[in-house]
This record gives sequence, C-alpha cells and structure tokens, in this order.
Amino acid sequence: MSKTILLGHGSGGKLTGNLIKKTFIRYFSNPVLEALTDSAIINVGDTLLAFTTDSYVVDPVFFPGGDIGKLAVNGTVNDLAVSGAEPMFISASFIIEEGLQISDLEVITKSMRDESDKAGVKIVTGDTKVVKKGQCDKIFINTSGIGILDKKHENISTGKYIEPGDKIIINGHIGDHAIAVMGARENLKFETKIESDCAPLNHLIKAFLNSGSDIKFMRDITRGGLATIVSEIVENRKFGVSINEAAVPVRESVKGMCEIFGYDPLFLANEGKVLIVVSDISAEKVMEIMKTHEYGKDAALIGEITTGNAGKAILRSIVGGSRIIDKLTGEQLPRIC
Amino acid sequence: MSKTILLGHGSGGKLTGNLIKKTFIRYFSNPVLEALTDSAIINVGDTLLAFTTDSYVVDPVFFPGGDIGKLAVNGTVNDLAVSGAEPMFISASFIIEEGLQISDLEVITKSMRDESDKAGVKIVTGDTKVVKKGQCDKIFINTSGIGILDKKHENISTGKYIEPGDKIIINGHIGDHAIAVMGARENLKFETKIESDCAPLNHLIKAFLNSGSDIKFMRDITRGGLATIVSEIVENRKFGVSINEAAVPVRESVKGMCEIFGYDPLFLANEGKVLIVVSDISAEKVMEIMKTHEYGKDAALIGEITTGNAGKAILRSIVGGSRIIDKLTGEQLPRIC
Repeated sequence: MSKTILLGHGSGGKLTGNLIKKTFIRYFSNPVLEALTDSAIINVGDTLLAFTTDSYVVDPVFFPGGDIGKLAVNGTVNDLAVSGAEPMFISASFIIEEGLQISDLEVITKSMRDESDKAGVKIVTGDTKVVKKGQCDKIFINTSGIGILDKKHENISTGKYIEPGDKIIINGHIGDHAIAVMGARENLKFETKIESDCAPLNHLIKAFLNSGSDIKFMRDITRGGLATIVSEIVENRKFGVSINEAAVPVRESVKGMCEIFGYDPLFLANEGKVLIVVSDISAEKVMEIMKTHEYGKDAALIGEITTGNAGKAILRSIVGGSRIIDKLTGEQLPRIC
Repeated sequence: MSKTILLGHGSGGKLTGNLIKKTFIRYFSNPVLEALTDSAIINVGDTLLAFTTDSYVVDPVFFPGGDIGKLAVNGTVNDLAVSGAEPMFISASFIIEEGLQISDLEVITKSMRDESDKAGVKIVTGDTKVVKKGQCDKIFINTSGIGILDKKHENISTGKYIEPGDKIIINGHIGDHAIAVMGARENLKFETKIESDCAPLNHLIKAFLNSGSDIKFMRDITRGGLATIVSEIVENRKFGVSINEAAVPVRESVKGMCEIFGYDPLFLANEGKVLIVVSDISAEKVMEIMKTHEYGKDAALIGEITTGNAGKAILRSIVGGSRIIDKLTGEQLPRIC
C-alpha cells in the first residue's frame, strides 16, 4: 500500500475502497458507516432518515450541460433518492479561491437554486471559506443532504434483497458526463455536442418506487462507473451478475472519444444515471415507467443476477466472448465531479 | 462591492455577511436559511432537527492543541449545541492533495474519532476526493451535523428572547485558538505555550440548558471573534449591549502577541468558546455550573443587555472610556479554521 495519497484514492474504485476500509472505517468504526451505502440510514426520534455528504471539485467549473453548482445539488439529491429516501434539505459549503469572479459565483449559486427547485429540496444552511490564490482551484463545494426514508425501503441501498433471476436496468446512456467534462477541460471540439447527463433523479425514482414494483436495489452510477457498481453488488455474495454489452446504451460520439483516448465506457462517471436491480416479474413495469420519464426515456435492461459465477460480474461482449468486469483501478479522469 | 472574491469574504465578519445576503440568500431564499442561525432548524416528520455544515481549511493542519480533524468535529458539534440541540450524527468529507502522507491522514482521522467519542456523536457517512498536487493545500475537511432539538429550545439561536437586563457570559479565555494557529503557521516560539481551545462544548451546554436556567441565546465565538457576535446580537434591535473590557478573560501571553502583531483579542477566532445571554436572575446559577466544568472553569460575566444605545455594542474600556464595537472588517488571519 502506498504511503502517500494518490489520485486513484479519489477515483471511486479499488484504491478508494481500500482507503475507506483501512483508514476511515478503522477509526470511525460503527455499524451505520460500515454498511458502506451512499447515504447513512439513521433513526432520529421516530423518523428514519437518510444522510449523505459529497464534496465537488470538478475541473473545469463550467462544462457542457452544467456546472459545479448543478452537480453539487443533483449529486446529493441522487445519493438520497437511491437510498429510497425523499430528499428534503441540503447544506451548501463553499471553499473559494481568492480572486474568483463574483459573477461566476452567482451563476453557480443560481444553478444550485434552479436544481434544488427542480428536485423539490431546500438549501437551508451553509458556510463560506476563502483561501489565498493558489491554495485551491477556483471553487470546491460540499453539499450534505437529509431525506426521509419510508421504513419499507430501509434496505434498498444495502443490496440484501438481491437474488438470482433479478434484472438489471439503467435509465439511459453512460459516459456522457465524463466525456463532456474531459472535453471542456482539454478544450476539445466534438462533431456531435456531448453534454453532461447531470440531473435530479428523485422524481423518476419515486415514480417506480411508488408503483408497487419489486425494487431490490438502487445506486447512482457516478465515479468508478457501471463496472465498479456491478462488481460491488456481487462482492462476497452467493450470486453473480451478467451484463449484456450490446444492451448497454452508449452514444456513438462517446464511443468514438473512448476509442481515441483508450477509455472503457463502463468505467466512465455519470451524474444522472441509476442502476436498478428489480425482480424479473417487475422488470417490464419499471421499464414502462422509465420510458415515460424525461430522465428514463433511453432506459435499458442490461443484464441479470445469475446463480453461476458467484461473486463475479461477467460481461457478455458484442462479439460473443465474455470477460470479468472489475472495479476501476487507478484513476482515468481525476476531478470529474 | 468588489467584483472578485477577497480573503475578507471568508472572515466571518462584514464581507462574509454581505456575500451571504447579496448572493446566497438572494438565490437560495427561504425562511430557514434567512434566519441566519449557525444551524438550520428544520422539521422532519414529528422531529425538530438542527442541521449545520462547515468546511475546514486551517493552515497548518497540525497546531498546538489540535489539528484539522479535531477542529472539524468540534466546530460542527458546537454549532449544533449552541442551537440548543443534542448533537447526534456527523458526516466527514475530505478533499485531499495528492501526496499527503497517509500517516498524517491517520492522525487526523484518529483525532476525529477521539473528539466524536468525547462529544458522543457518530460519524456515519463520508466522501473522499483527491486533487492533483498544487490544486488544494494538503487537506480540507467538511463536516455536516444533525442534532435533535427540544421544541422548548427552538428559538435559542435566533436571539428573539434577548431583553434589557440580561447578562452576557463567556466560558473562558478568548484568542487562544487564533494565536496558537498563527504561531504554528509563522513558526513562532512563545515563552508560554499557547494552545488552541478547540473542544466539544455540548456537555457543558447541556448542563446549564437542563438546569432550569433562563437561557436566552447562545452562539459559539469562532471567526469574527467576540466583537462580531456582540455586534450581531444588537443589530436592528431595540436594545444595546455593554461589554466590560476588564472582565473579558484574555491570557497575558495572548495579550502580548496581540500587542506585537497589532491584533485586537475581541476579533480573534476561538474554537471552544460560547457566548451566552442569560436572564439576570439565572446568571449566578449559570456561572456556578460553568465553574464546575472542564471547559467552563474560567467563565466570566462580561457584560449586559442595555436599554440605551439601541443597536450598538459598547466596550467600557479598562482605562475608563468607552467605544463602539463593530463587526470584523477585512481579514486578519485567513485559514484560521
């Protein structure tokens, strides 16, 4: 293990997982944290809450389809929503580099307002720190969020209900966010405009959660990409997962950029995508609901939970072969969110 | 108004107040945020909660009496406690510069664990981002916190109960934290060791809140110092406040440093100090409780709410004169917390 922090420790993949286990869990040790869900599930009085936090360091601050403010609100809204909670309240804490244009801060603040309005959450508390020029890069934003969780959804983020035969659905194309940010960072011109998929998914999620469908598990597909999540859901479990590569929606433009830069779309970060594990019997219904929704119209059934290959995630490739999907190692694109 | 962000926008004084009003309140506008209390007071189900956030960027990361981890836990615990709430759950979000020694991260993480144990709170959720060398300075930590608030304390952070005749009490010496951090930053050698006062105040606060004393208002004295808080409590109110300079506890060593560097102790940041406004009849009892407590043994009654000088904070100086105390303008010591 490295003695210093590497970029990969922030990738959301293997190194991040090691750091969490070997440092944070080791000291902070408690059952809520050890569940390693995106949101902590906590009892406060008679109410079950989801509580989550994320810091955003995306570079550049403005990119096609969004900015750091939009990201900061939607990231936290989505972390709450995938835990089955109704997002309610958000905090906003800013670390700003001396010299940032106040007009830029206003654009970012307005984005946060617009997205919180869309999601139906309130920004209720905040903090501002300013550091000297060169001590941070423009602006970093932390948002933490609180949502109310219905007791019947208490275990949806733990994966404990997943079983063989369940289907895997995602709500649209993967990789748009990572490629949009990378393009903006490197000042690339794309033939087809690629925009971040950054969006609040809570209304979409509520629609299928309230439909009586048998939802087993949800997680938003952010850092680490689809590959990392499917690897995580089978880790130390008695079942495997099989993903049908041909069914995974990836835009031609994103595929093209991946070929040029040597990226695998399965590892790319997203900011408006959710992976759902749903019982076979409910899969069709969830797909129908998805298709009627702005953020779900390109949804796809991409795979299933298998009895065989326990603990493994297998990709059945377009050309007919199959390979094991692993978590992201190292870091492809630092500061993607 | 400046078109760019200045260091003073993070001072906790006048410029911070302007930025909050002109940018954040303008866009995020809602009654909870507009209360401008340290913690938001929110209703979740049948439970009243306090919810707060703070980002910590202190430089250096390690200083006499503490480190950024200790600060991050206690700062958020204290923000919850002064709102009258019982601190319960904390989030921890790290922005780390590539190359940080993992052994340093472990010391910081262990501090966070130790302080959260002392305070009786649990760290239940977190996030880790890593940025390239030079894109932040070692480590920034955000903590957000949730506490349960008894309905009878709902207005303790708003100041609405303050009235002429009330007494002002603080729980000990001011300025230790700022001078300890500045000393470590500038690598100064002090004749007498000056240590940060960083401490969790929730048990102390609970002791006098539960004593039946008539507590009108509390706030922790952090950025902006004592001067900024006493200015804020009388702002646009029909009463004034009078502070007796001779009664304000300042260590000789801190006074000495202030004389050398031209600081006014009243503006210095603290991390273990609370200002309490209490009815005349309860002042003695609160002082007695304070004196029995580790973090209150040097408590002092430093002033009172006055009918005259409405809207003004007056300092009656040791030499007999008096002057108006205003909020901190500009920034004396950036990255103090």
